[in-house]
Formats: sequence, structure tokens, C-alpha cells
Amino acid sequence: MLDDSYLATDCDNKPQESCGVFGIFAPQEDAARLTFYGLLALQHRGQESAGIVSSDFKQVNSVKGMGLVNQVFTETKIKQLAGALAIGHTRYSTAGSSVIENAQPTLLDSSYGPLAVSHNGNLANYTELRQELLKKGHCLNSQIDSELIVRLVIEAHGRNLKQKLVNGLSQIKGAYSLIFLTKNKLYVVRDRWGIRPLILGQINGRGWVIASESTAIESVGGHVIREVKPGEFIEISYKGIETFHQLKSKSGGFCIFEYVYFSKPESIVNNKLVYSARLKSGQLLAREHPAQADYVISVPDSGTAAALGYAQESGIIFQEGLIKSRYVGRTFIQPTQRIRDLGVRLKFSPLQRFLKNKSIVLVDDSVVRGTTITQIIHLLREAGVKNIHLRIASPPFKNLCFLGIDVHRYDELIAQTHTGQEIMQKIGADSLGYLSLTGLKQAVGRVKHGLCTGCFNKKYPIV
Amino acid sequence: MLDDSYLATDCDNKPQESCGVFGIFAPQEDAARLTFYGLLALQHRGQESAGIVSSDFKQVNSVKGMGLVNQVFTETKIKQLAGALAIGHTRYSTAGSSVIENAQPTLLDSSYGPLAVSHNGNLANYTELRQELLKKGHCLNSQIDSELIVRLVIEAHGRNLKQKLVNGLSQIKGAYSLIFLTKNKLYVVRDRWGIRPLILGQINGRGWVIASESTAIESVGGHVIREVKPGEFIEISYKGIETFHQLKSKSGGFCIFEYVYFSKPESIVNNKLVYSARLKSGQLLAREHPAQADYVISVPDSGTAAALGYAQESGIIFQEGLIKSRYVGRTFIQPTQRIRDLGVRLKFSPLQRFLKNKSIVLVDDSVVRGTTITQIIHLLREAGVKNIHLRIASPPFKNLCFLGIDVHRYDELIAQTHTGQEIMQKIGADSLGYLSLTGLKQAVGRVKHGLCTGCFNKKYPIV
Amino acid sequence: MLDDSYLATDCDNKPQESCGVFGIFAPQEDAARLTFYGLLALQHRGQESAGIVSSDFKQVNSVKGMGLVNQVFTETKIKQLAGALAIGHTRYSTAGSSVIENAQPTLLDSSYGPLAVSHNGNLANYTELRQELLKKGHCLNSQIDSELIVRLVIEAHGRNLKQKLVNGLSQIKGAYSLIFLTKNKLYVVRDRWGIRPLILGQINGRGWVIASESTAIESVGGHVIREVKPGEFIEISYKGIETFHQLKSKSGGFCIFEYVYFSKPESIVNNKLVYSARLKSGQLLAREHPAQADYVISVPDSGTAAALGYAQESGIIFQEGLIKSRYVGRTFIQPTQRIRDLGVRLKFSPLQRFLKNKSIVLVDDSVVRGTTITQIIHLLREAGVKNIHLRIASPPFKNLCFLGIDVHRYDELIAQTHTGQEIMQKIGADSLGYLSLTGLKQAVGRVKHGLCTGCFNKKYPIV
Amino acid sequence: MLDDSYLATDCDNKPQESCGVFGIFAPQEDAARLTFYGLLALQHRGQESAGIVSSDFKQVNSVKGMGLVNQVFTETKIKQLAGALAIGHTRYSTAGSSVIENAQPTLLDSSYGPLAVSHNGNLANYTELRQELLKKGHCLNSQIDSELIVRLVIEAHGRNLKQKLVNGLSQIKGAYSLIFLTKNKLYVVRDRWGIRPLILGQINGRGWVIASESTAIESVGGHVIREVKPGEFIEISYKGIETFHQLKSKSGGFCIFEYVYFSKPESIVNNKLVYSARLKSGQLLAREHPAQADYVISVPDSGTAAALGYAQESGIIFQEGLIKSRYVGRTFIQPTQRIRDLGVRLKFSPLQRFLKNKSIVLVDDSVVRGTTITQIIHLLREAGVKNIHLRIASPPFKNLCFLGIDVHRYDELIAQTHTGQEIMQKIGADSLGYLSLTGLKQAVGRVKHGLCTGCFNKKYPIV
Repeated sequence: MLDDSYLATDCDNKPQESCGVFGIFAPQEDAARLTFYGLLALQHRGQESAGIVSSDFKQVNSVKGMGLVNQVFTETKIKQLAGALAIGHTRYSTAGSSVIENAQPTLLDSSYGPLAVSHNGNLANYTELRQELLKKGHCLNSQIDSELIVRLVIEAHGRNLKQKLVNGLSQIKGAYSLIFLTKNKLYVVRDRWGIRPLILGQINGRGWVIASESTAIESVGGHVIREVKPGEFIEISYKGIETFHQLKSKSGGFCIFEYVYFSKPESIVNNKLVYSARLKSGQLLAREHPAQADYVISVPDSGTAAALGYAQESGIIFQEGLIKSRYVGRTFIQPTQRIRDLGVRLKFSPLQRFLKNKSIVLVDDSVVRGTTITQIIHLLREAGVKNIHLRIASPPFKNLCFLGIDVHRYDELIAQTHTGQEIMQKIGADSLGYLSLTGLKQAVGRVKHGLCTGCFNKKYPIV
Repeated sequence: MLDDSYLATDCDNKPQESCGVFGIFAPQEDAARLTFYGLLALQHRGQESAGIVSSDFKQVNSVKGMGLVNQVFTETKIKQLAGALAIGHTRYSTAGSSVIENAQPTLLDSSYGPLAVSHNGNLANYTELRQELLKKGHCLNSQIDSELIVRLVIEAHGRNLKQKLVNGLSQIKGAYSLIFLTKNKLYVVRDRWGIRPLILGQINGRGWVIASESTAIESVGGHVIREVKPGEFIEISYKGIETFHQLKSKSGGFCIFEYVYFSKPESIVNNKLVYSARLKSGQLLAREHPAQADYVISVPDSGTAAALGYAQESGIIFQEGLIKSRYVGRTFIQPTQRIRDLGVRLKFSPLQRFLKNKSIVLVDDSVVRGTTITQIIHLLREAGVKNIHLRIASPPFKNLCFLGIDVHRYDELIAQTHTGQEIMQKIGADSLGYLSLTGLKQAVGRVKHGLCTGCFNKKYPIV
Repeated sequence: MLDDSYLATDCDNKPQESCGVFGIFAPQEDAARLTFYGLLALQHRGQESAGIVSSDFKQVNSVKGMGLVNQVFTETKIKQLAGALAIGHTRYSTAGSSVIENAQPTLLDSSYGPLAVSHNGNLANYTELRQELLKKGHCLNSQIDSELIVRLVIEAHGRNLKQKLVNGLSQIKGAYSLIFLTKNKLYVVRDRWGIRPLILGQINGRGWVIASESTAIESVGGHVIREVKPGEFIEISYKGIETFHQLKSKSGGFCIFEYVYFSKPESIVNNKLVYSARLKSGQLLAREHPAQADYVISVPDSGTAAALGYAQESGIIFQEGLIKSRYVGRTFIQPTQRIRDLGVRLKFSPLQRFLKNKSIVLVDDSVVRGTTITQIIHLLREAGVKNIHLRIASPPFKNLCFLGIDVHRYDELIAQTHTGQEIMQKIGADSLGYLSLTGLKQAVGRVKHGLCTGCFNKKYPIV
Repeated sequence: MLDDSYLATDCDNKPQESCGVFGIFAPQEDAARLTFYGLLALQHRGQESAGIVSSDFKQVNSVKGMGLVNQVFTETKIKQLAGALAIGHTRYSTAGSSVIENAQPTLLDSSYGPLAVSHNGNLANYTELRQELLKKGHCLNSQIDSELIVRLVIEAHGRNLKQKLVNGLSQIKGAYSLIFLTKNKLYVVRDRWGIRPLILGQINGRGWVIASESTAIESVGGHVIREVKPGEFIEISYKGIETFHQLKSKSGGFCIFEYVYFSKPESIVNNKLVYSARLKSGQLLAREHPAQADYVISVPDSGTAAALGYAQESGIIFQEGLIKSRYVGRTFIQPTQRIRDLGVRLKFSPLQRFLKNKSIVLVDDSVVRGTTITQIIHLLREAGVKNIHLRIASPPFKNLCFLGIDVHRYDELIAQTHTGQEIMQKIGADSLGYLSLTGLKQAVGRVKHGLCTGCFNKKYPIV
């Protein structure tokens, strides 16, 4: 539901995450052009703004803009981005700070020459770090993490950029998956918990690709090598790839919500196909919360894999029951009250005749605020659906996140403010079942460094 | 695959159709604003240009532009379109004539005041009619059917506009679903074969809505009343709705491809849910062409309903195996050779690990040129799929269409130039099965006025 | 004051005229590119919209847009306008009908192929002619003269286009200077009174140029040959130039206001340099209305030539006393009351110290509504000017014009509603002198076919 | 000739200067809106980009963009700039660095809150200061002086912002006229030589205005109080205006070229009307270099005042002989060779008939590269002018400037590379006379702190 946040501002029940990052070091390739396509594959991670910074070993160039990747980049602009190194960024859309100054990558000139960075994550001690820098006489020109990160790095002690990277980033508490670009190198760093994903791949034999998700690497013709390790510092240059520092990694940090909602189903995250985890979560959900129904249907697209799993386990037939419009997207037309009343009707069309007098299991990946699912259930009732058994392929979303999920107030979380019974009544379902955290963990399976499940059980890796 | 025709120009294997039309007469409503949302629901029928003409009983206003509905209309422009009457249009994208002059609705001033029209269809005798008009001393300012239609109507004999509509349109051979707008009335007309769809609905008790598909009526909060009959001429005014003329209707004209591909699955066409027809076509396809496989997967989105039918009938598990990118769309970045080599990889991601060493039934709705499906099969092979049994939920597409499907050359049609065996080898499938025409007709079921199946068997209603 | 009509809407005291036209037939030249520069030289005749239609003998192409020539045309658009024939148009800005549909040239397809026209003038019987065409079953798509002209021509009887031109245009009462373009020819026509200017030139030996003013011909490197004669019909083709028809010309039609204000000073109109006429008008004004003053200053730019003449004749020193801002132009910023109070201050800056306690003769070319001159005098008073003797280099503008000057209501004309004494008091001058009509005519000198002075003395050539 | 630098890139013979600055503290006024109009009046000082930063005492907002003031600001953008404090900037156009990052005002967040600055001038030790800052671990995000200035100030020692301003700016060698904006104050500073102009005015009784030229103050309805003194530091707040620091001022610094070309004629600079200085320079030029001729004509607009002075002193009649096009401006159409050959013909039209066989004195304000004047003389020769006596109202421009005039290479300066005799021949004049430096100084008169005449005699105030 990320693709139509404007229209759906008041009814979107999915959390938002911060950004997709992409980097490439590919001699004899048009790095920026491949980065463009890599960003297209990461567009679901952010639609507010996009940018690319490239280097041809002599000059570093930057193009950024508001909107979708396809809106920001034209052939003319891609041509301004010469060179074999590039990093890119897609940023997600929030209400307040939707301004070009906050678009990434951040590019600054330093005593080490131009230094740019693409960042995914969230600095828990951003305010303190910013205040310190200001006190030391620095000035900032944006409100974004990535500018602070560059300034922290350059201001840190150290005899060279690598030392400064290690020392500067060690001050940060929080989640960061970073790709830095200098005139002739890339640096790749991930926080010691490995909270946000970051994957390393190869392209064309001699080139390197880094991305938030494996699908972006494969969509540009690369192949995945491995995850960047929690706490790992990598340098990529003509000499090849080198891990030049390794912070002691910490466990229990990888965001479980990447499996539930953020990542695309085709992405391989921690050596696990997201689709498989979702399919499995649906199967376990069917065991934990069986139901009698004519059909299983999903809230597309994010609920589909779990719905298929539910159908397979329960033996109930899966059907497309809600068709999602591919074109609603962002609109500049003001919704009048009549339009607001139309609500999700503009985005979802129920197969009325097909569902009439039927009992259904309705599967969604998660419920955060509960507004969209309420409207969807209302829509299905109008279409004549008799019984609606809502099944959620993750546990109740009860807690705030300080590590990259955009959920800021407890009273926005329906599972925080209501009991299960109250939620069921409020949203109008005949029954409601959430997958247990145990079940979700089982569906995801063993993850090397362990998972952050703070949004479900308040156990955060960083305290 | 209509949503990304630019990038996919050389690999798109689906035919294109001409346009979606929408009209509304709704006292006390903001007609243009509802038309905007109606057009959003018809966007899949045309992405080249969009337009709305409205009337407040005093003045007729028009806004048209190139691109998607969401790109053409801003709040400022919607505000220029006051009034309780409006008609709208989405036009599909062709290579040659993508200019603003060809955007619809066409609005002209006449002795009956301003007259606008939205048109879906194709005039088989366009060239002759145009020549006649020119010979009579008329001048035209575009190359589009709808301008010719308005001039034919106004130039026809008749003592009033209704007579002129009857006499003017009777000269046309071909497919037309038309909504006219005058200062205070709408006129709705459909050719006597009823080739293109046109549905009538009500909104808000006193208002009327007309659209190419029922989903557009429902998305703006209306409800469907009935189809506009083949050959029917309707007047909608403050006095209500009146059929003022009925041409003798002809049978065998409704485009069967609306069920196969054009219409959205949630649309009810000839009193038949499109999804049900597609589901059934998949079931019959499974009977006609069974296969042994681990999974049924579809080419999303258009092949999914048939794939589900195939899975249900065959007992083979349905899985999402190809994930379609929602963001590729139109791009202004020139594809270099490397990008071209990436091909459908930019649009479709296979679930590699999941499909490795598996046998699959791959279901698509139709194959026209065969280029995209070839690339998709190649992609699946690379992902390690062992056996690919391609099943097409419609018969071989062998013939040109003069009634609204944009297929102009026989050598573009793979089923015209190759045998089934050759196609199978060319596209790289292990087996290939097309649904028979009998099967497709059975899936669609009885349609009151009969179906045009010319693209499959060269039997056209108009000769 | 044409260049800043938006800001100055409520204070502009100059009449507006309709349009500049340009045409070129120039083998081996890039006709559209030269037309672009020709239109730049005619920009003072209209800033609302601009357009060019060109032909490469095979295809006719058109680009039109709102705004200044420089805003409408980009390199990409000029490249779409291939060929050795082109016509262009600049349209002046009115309040109501500022829409792209009304931009020229008008291009229509006819039984004679594509036919385009650029028009300067005004059809006195436009409404009747339009009604007749509508009654005959034609439809129009704009409100502009030029579309009507093309349709009249094509609808007229005649065995070929030349006959139709003669017969079609003979129905028109009014002012027209026309350049038509077909696939391989230009046709140039001027009404029998020769009301609006139209000049013929040569370029590069073998090519022909036609323009509203000689300066446009010279700015693109051509040289002037002669005026197009009143009532003359010219064909320009590969065979050369031929007058194929000559209506009996009528005298007393050339708009005297071209000398007073419309034409640029460097233009040669009826074999007379406009600057010389204006200089002379100032000299005669000094004789008719002498004054005692320290300096002569002008209202720039249109009053400067006359002010220099006044200074030379009177012996009073000419000074720049009001500096005109070159950058105010059109602004999209809404004028608050405070901004409105600033008024002409934003456009004109007085040389305060220089003028303090001085007596001046202030020379302007004409006064129509009187609002701007009132503000200018107020500004000069604030700057400390002691005595202001206002001298106008034309007679009182008392009458409406139906032949191309945009003055529509008598109550807008200060000279119609006030006596000279009242005007002087209202605008705050110490004395006021208008050049007599005799004087103005003497300044202009003998003009072959005679002048229309209707705005001054209500003697119109067409009744 | 600043207004059409794009087209005229290869033929412009006037130096370019860096920028116009404007600031306003005006309770109960819409400060940004007035700043918009103030910038319009300073547009001649820079057309590359424009920007405004405003504060409503709570929040500081910024809008910047490429192009003219009128192109950058729309009503929507002005509305984003609430508040009673604002500063603005117009930047001149250079080839290389025409990017939005270099637009001003610069706005940065600091330990003192948001701090913005508008700057006119040039830092002679920019590179050294930048290197020092980088070495200290700061990062910069642009190449412009003003960012460096803000960082220098904030990084300087001092217990409050005022002390930091004094200490930070004391490190600078060079020319600066600065207006700083904080959330609730303005700070105005001028270098100790007072190289670039900076004027202080009052508006509406209680408000303050600062601008590069007095005309900007008057155009928004303010009145001039005095010059900001060389070395003066002013604070403007609710408490009023206070000079909180005064560097020991140095003499001999004010740029004499402001009188020759940069400032508008209506501006009062150092208590001297620019027009008067130019008029006087023409009179002295006539005494130093008399000539026999029929007319004096000027190269408009910058040569006109001197030409009038020459005419008055010599008794030769002044005429408009070259008409300057007001619409050429920036064009996006590529000049073909044919267009390039047209050269200044597109910008200047000679009054051919009027000048034929005449002898003229042609007056321009200055000659730098000599390319435009050569083309103008060629144009006048073609128009039949018999004798051309070129008179330049300033001395030969022989030296580079490091204090704000954009002249970077000696070989661009015709007076550096050629003798007077050679110049005369090269540009095609019959005689050539430059005003002596003594004459120019006499024309300007006594200036309190003395003038920089480095471009003429290599005597720079800063060494």
C-alpha cells in the first residue's frame, strides 16, 4: 500500500520504512544507468524522492528530485551522471519534511574530496549527535541522518578516511546500512546488529553491486554473493573488495518486519526467500487459527503469499476476491467528502457476484492502525460476503520502533489501544486470528544473527 | 502489460485496445471530479492521453492532456470543469500519432451549440467518410474518429440533434460506443453489433453514469443498471433517461477479447463476471491440456484468474512464481544494449529458489507476438525451472482486427506465421496448449447478442 | 507598455492590437528557425501565444503554445518543424480567451490538403459569417478569426484553391493581412483597404519573406522589396512569386496608429520610417503647443522619438527622466493592496534629484484610458518636479475601433468622457497639449492609399 | 547587455558582476512579497538564479530557483515565505557553475539556529579559507562564497553571534556586502573598503530595507536613509537599528564601474545620482574627444546618458539610431551558422534611412572584449552610415578584477592586447576616443571613501 499513500493518507494501515539504497562499482559500465534500474526495483521502499551520485574517477556528479525514480530521471539527467561508480537512494514519503533538501544521497565536499552517502536506517541518538556537532561550530543544511553521518565521519579523529569511518560511525546508536562514494571508491557499512538489510553482489565478472534487497541486484543482471555482515566495513576499489574493519557484531537485531511486509517476495533475506517465509506463515496461521469458509482471499499484494499458504494448509480454495487498482497512485485532486466516502473503493474492487453469500477467510500480512482493513471489510460486506474470518500473518503490532519503521505514537496502534475482541468488533470481522510470534519466527526460520521483534514484544536490541 | 508499454515496446505481446469512455449526469454532484475517478478505473484501457469535458448548463469546458489521468489533471484543472454533466476519455498509446490534437473528448461548436463526444471503437469506413466530408467543403483538425463522428452527425439531415445522430451514425460501418455531451444533455449510442462494451448505471438516486466497464461505475459509488443495447440511442436530461431510437440490433458482435484480456476481472460484462469466465477458462484448459507439474504459476496480472482455475481443476498447487514490478512503467531513460538484454527481468522477478528444479504449468491469457513470453520462459529457465508447460487460456490469435484491437500486420502474429510445434520450440516451452475456441466460448457462457471471435477464426460480424 | 500587461492590467493606457504575422519560403533554409527569429522581432505585437506551422513539401507540422516566443519554442520543438516553408504568429493578450485553442496559426485538413493561416486584423462581420457556416452544418473548434477564414475559403465556390481564396475572402468585411501555407506554397492576401501592414522581402537571393513589419524581415537577414498592395492576392511557390488576383483597392484605410504606437521605430511603413514620423510629430507638437521648461522627458519607450523631436524644435534639453524597468514583465505574484499602491513605481523610476524643482515637458505618444499617465505624473510630483507640461504626440483618442485595435467601450476612453480641461485636472498636469490630426498627418506625410483615422475622428473606411 | 547573455555569449563586451542583495525587516508587512519586487528592481545585477529566505520569528523558510525572479517565484511559493523578515538575492550568470546548489541566499542550521545570508562581492582569499575549514573537519556543500561566510562566522570564536560575525568576517580579504537573517534579526555588514554598494532605507515608518541599489528601496515604497558605511556591522531587530561594530574603514575601495555600467541610472550611489555622473562623463568626453558629426547616437541602454551629455556639450543632435529589441533574451534555440551570422542584428536594429550617408558620434559606456561593438559598427556601416566616431565614456579596461567583476583572463581584454589605433581598426571605427581616468573621476565627483579604479589603472585597494 506504499504506492498510493497520498490518496490513502487517512486510511493506510501499513507502517512505512526508510528507504532503499543501491551502489555499484562497475568498470566499463554506465553505473548511473544501472543504478536507475536498481532504484526502480527498490521503489517500493520509498516514493518521496530519489537521487543518484556518480563518479568517473575525476568528477563527482549528483542528480536528485522529488517523486518517483521515473519522474526524477530523464535521459538528459542520466547523461550528466558519467562514470563507473554510483550510489542511489529512494526515500519514503512522510507528511512534514517532503522537501528537496532532504533527498538523498547526501554529497558534501571534505578534506578527503567529495564524499556522498546513501543511508537506510534510523539514528536513535540523532538529536544528541546533532547538538554536539552544532556546539562544535558546524552548520548543517538539512534534517536528515545522512548529512549528519558524513559530518560525523569527517569530524572524527583518524589519519585517513577508513579510520574516520570507523571512529565516526562508532558514535551512532541505531540502525544504519550505508554506502559511501568517494571519487574512486565505495565504502559499505552496516550497524553491528544488522538491523536493515544490505546485500553484496557481483556484476559482469569484475564489478560489484550493493543493494537493500537481492531483487535489485538481480534486476540489473548481477548475482548475489552474500549479506554484508553486521558491523562490517568494506572498501571497494580497483584493487577489489576488502573488509577493513569488523565491529563486534550483536545478535537479535534484524528487523522481522522485512519478512512480514517491507521486502519484496522474490528477495532473499538472510539466505531465506521472503515468499517462502510468508507462505509458511500462512500455513502456520491456518493451523493456529483454522476457519470454515468457501474461499481464502488476500488483501493484495502484500497478503497474497500468506493467503496461499493458508489455503494450502486448510484445503480451502484460494481466489482473487479483491482486485487492486494499479493506477490510483498519487493524485493531486482534492478529495471532497463524497470522494472520501468512496475510500478504499477507489483502490480495491471486490468480485461482488463471486463472493455473494460466501464465507471467506481474509488474509492480510499485518494490521497497524486498522483503518484500511475496516474499510475493506465494509466493502466486502456490501458485496454480500456472509462471513469474514480475518487472519493476520503476524502478531499484534503493539510497540513503537526507533530503528527505521515510521510509527511514532502509541495511540495510532490499534493493537495497543484495543483488545483482540474489541478490534474484531471495531473492524467488523466475524472472527480474528493473529499469527503468534512463535509461529512467525518458525515461518522465518533460523536467522544467523537473530531477529528484532520489538514491534511485537517490545524487545529491542539497542537499549 | 498495458502499464509499461514504453519500456516494453519491443517485447509486449498483448494487443492494445482503443480507449475507455465515461459519462455522468448528476445534479448536485461535481461531475468532473467523479469523472476523474471514473477514468482512473478505466486507465488500463488507455494511457496515452486523457480528457474531460463538462457543462454547467451554461458553459462547456474542456481539459485534455498527454499521459496518465493522474498526470493530466490537477486540482486547478478540475476546478475549471464546473457542472453536473461531464464526459471523459482515456486513450491508448500508439507509436505514430501521440499528439495532443488526438486526445479526446472532441469538442466542437455547432449550430446546436457545443457538442462533445467520447468514443471507443473503430470506424471501418473512416477513410471514405472523411473523403466525402472533405469533398463537401469541410475541414478537419485531427486524425481521430471522434472528430469525424461529430461532423458527420451535424452535417447529416434531420430537424433536430436526435434525428441527426440517427442519420449521421447510420453511415458508419464499424464499432462505436459513444457518449455525447451538449450544454444540458448526454446522448449515449452503441453500434448495432454492440462490439465494444458500454454500461449504464445510476448514482445517488437521481443521477446517471455510463462507462466502458462496470468497475468504473462502482468505483465512483454508482450501481450498474444494464448494458446499453446494441443499436440503442439514449438521451439523458433533466427529464430522465429515454431510448429515443433503436437500430435493428445484429448478433455476433461483442468482442470476446474483453473477457480474455481487456476488461478488468471485477467487471461484469454482458451480465457475466469477467473473473468467473477467466477462472472457468483455466479449468477447461486443464481438462483440454492436462500436465504433470509441481506448481501452477501465472504471468501476472492478466493470467492469474485462469491459472487459479487450472490449479483448481488439476489439483496442482497454485503459487506466485513471477513477481511483477509495479513501478517500471514509462521511463524516459534510453535502454542501452545492456538494458535491452535485461529485458523482462526489469518487469518480472522469478522466485528462484522456490522454482529451482521444479516442473511448472505456466498460464497466460493469450499470446499475440510471442516476444514477452519467450523472454519470461528464458528467465524461468535461468531460475532453474526444470519443465515448463505453457498453457494459454485462449485460442491462437491468428487474424487482424478492424473493430478496435490494435493489431495491424499479419507477420506480427506468431500463430499466423508458425505452427504450434514451431511456437513451442521458438519460445522454449516443453509443451504448449491453447484453449480451444469451443472451450473459451463455454467459459464465457451464453452472451445475449453473441460474440465476435474474428481474431481467432476470422468470422467478423461486419463484412 | 505591451510588455507588462499582466501587472499593469488596471493602469495600462495603451491600446492593444491583434498580432504579428510572418511567413517564409526559402529553399535550402531552415524556415522554422528563421520564423522563430522573425517572431521575436514581432513579439511587441502580441505576447499571449505564439505558433509556427512548417512544410517540407511532404508533411505539414505545427507547434503552438501560450506565452512568449521564447517560452513556446525549444530546440526540440523547432526540430519538429522541418522544411523550407513556414508561417508564424504572435498573438496579443486579452483577458477572456487566453487559451491554447485560440493560438495561431490555424491548421486544418481540407480537400486541398493541409491549409494553415496566420492572420492580423479583425473581421467586422465575424458573427454573421460564423452563423452562416454553422447553419450550413459546419462545426468550429475555436473562437478565432483565422479558423473561420480557412473554413470560408474552403467552403467557397471555385475550381481551385486560388479561386476559393478570392471568393471566400470577398465575403469578409474588415481588416485582414493573411499568410496561408499549403504543403508547397504560400498565399499572401491583404484586404482592399490595406488596413494592417504587410511587407514583402527577399532572402538569400531565391527566398521570400513576408512580415507585419520590415524590422522582422531585416532581423533575419532579408531585405524589404515592397508593401503587399491593398487587395492583392499573391502566390509564392517554386515558380516564384505571382500576383494572381487584385481586388479593386480602396483608399483611406491604413491604420494611422501604426505610426503612433504599434510599429517599432525602425520599421518602414508605407515607405516611411516610423521613427521619422514620430520625430516629426514631436517637432510639430512643439510648434502647436510650446512650453517653457528645463527639460523635455519622455514616457519610455514609445514616447521617446516624439520627445526628441519636441526637444529639437523647442531647444529645450532632452533628458532621460523616467527609467523603465526591463524585467517587470508578467508576474505570477498576486498584487496585494500595498503592491497595487506601488503601481507604476514598479515599472518606472524617476531621476529624483535631477528633476527636483524642475519644470518639464513630458511627452507621450498617446493617451487612451489615462490611468498610467496619471500615476506617472503623480510619481514625478513626488520626485519634486515643479511643473509638468504634458504633450501628447497624437490627437485625443475618442472612438472605438472595429479593425484591429482592442478598444471596446466608450467609457474606457478618457477623451470621450472628459474635456481637455477635465483631463488635465484629472491626471494632474499643469498644461496639456495634443497634437492636432492635421499635425499628425503632416508628420506621417503622404501615404499612397490614405490613412484610417477613425479612432481620432470617427471616419472609418468601412461602413 | 546583461539581459541576453545566452544568445550573445560570444559577442558580449560588458563585464558581469556578482549579484544584487535585498533585505527587509518590516513588522506587519508581507516581507517576502516586497522582497520579490525588490529583487525585480535588482534583476539587472544577475539573471542566473534568485532566492528568498524569510522568517516569521518562529520558522525560517527558503525558496530558490534557476532563472529570472519572475520565473522562480509563483504565488504558491511566495505564500510559503511567511513573515516580517526576509532577505533575497539575484545571481549573475556564468558558464560553468550554473546549478541550483549555487543559488543564494545560503541557509544553514547552526548552534544559533537557522542562519541565512545574501552576499555581493568576491573573497580574494576564498581558496585559503576553504582549505582551512576543510582541514578543521568541516564539510561544504557548494562552491559559493556565501556558504563559506556562514561557516566562517559560526566557527569563529566569540560568545555570541555578533562577536562571531566580527571575528569570522575579519579573516576575509575581499569585497563583501552582506545581509544575514536569523529567526528574529537581520545583520548587515560591509567590507572596510566598501567595495560593493549597500544602502539602508526605511519603509512604512517602522520598517527597514537594505539593498544593493537605492532604486530597489524606492520601488517597494521605501525611502533611502544612508549608505551602510565601509566596515560597519548593523543589527536590525524589534529594538530598532544599531551599529554594534565598526571596523576601521579603508579608503579607495568603491568600485568605479558601478557608475560606468553596473548600477541603474536612477540609483543614488554615494550620494551621487548615477545618471548625473554618466551625463557628465559624456560632456567631458565631448571636450576631450570632440568630433564633427550629424548626430550623436548611443548603444542602448547603458550608453544613452553619456550620449546625451556628449550631445549637450557638443551641440550635435542626439537621436535614437539603434533600437534594442526587448524580447530576444534567453533562447533555447540553437544558433545555426546562419543565425550566428545574424549576430547583433537580432538585438539591435539601425534606423537605416535616417542614418544613411550621415556622420555619427557613437557613444558607449565601456569596451571590454570589443566583440559586440565591432558587430554594431558593422551593422551601422551596412545601414549606410558614412563616418563613425566611437566615443567611450570610460578609460580603456586593461586589468583583471578580483573584487567582483567577472573578468578572468587578460587576453579577453581588447585594451590589454591592442593599442588604441589597433582597436580602432579592428572594430572598424573612423576615430576612437576614451574618456580619461581624470575625466571619469571628475564626472563622478568626490566620493567620501574614494574609488577603486583597478580595472583602469591596476591600483587595487587590497594587496
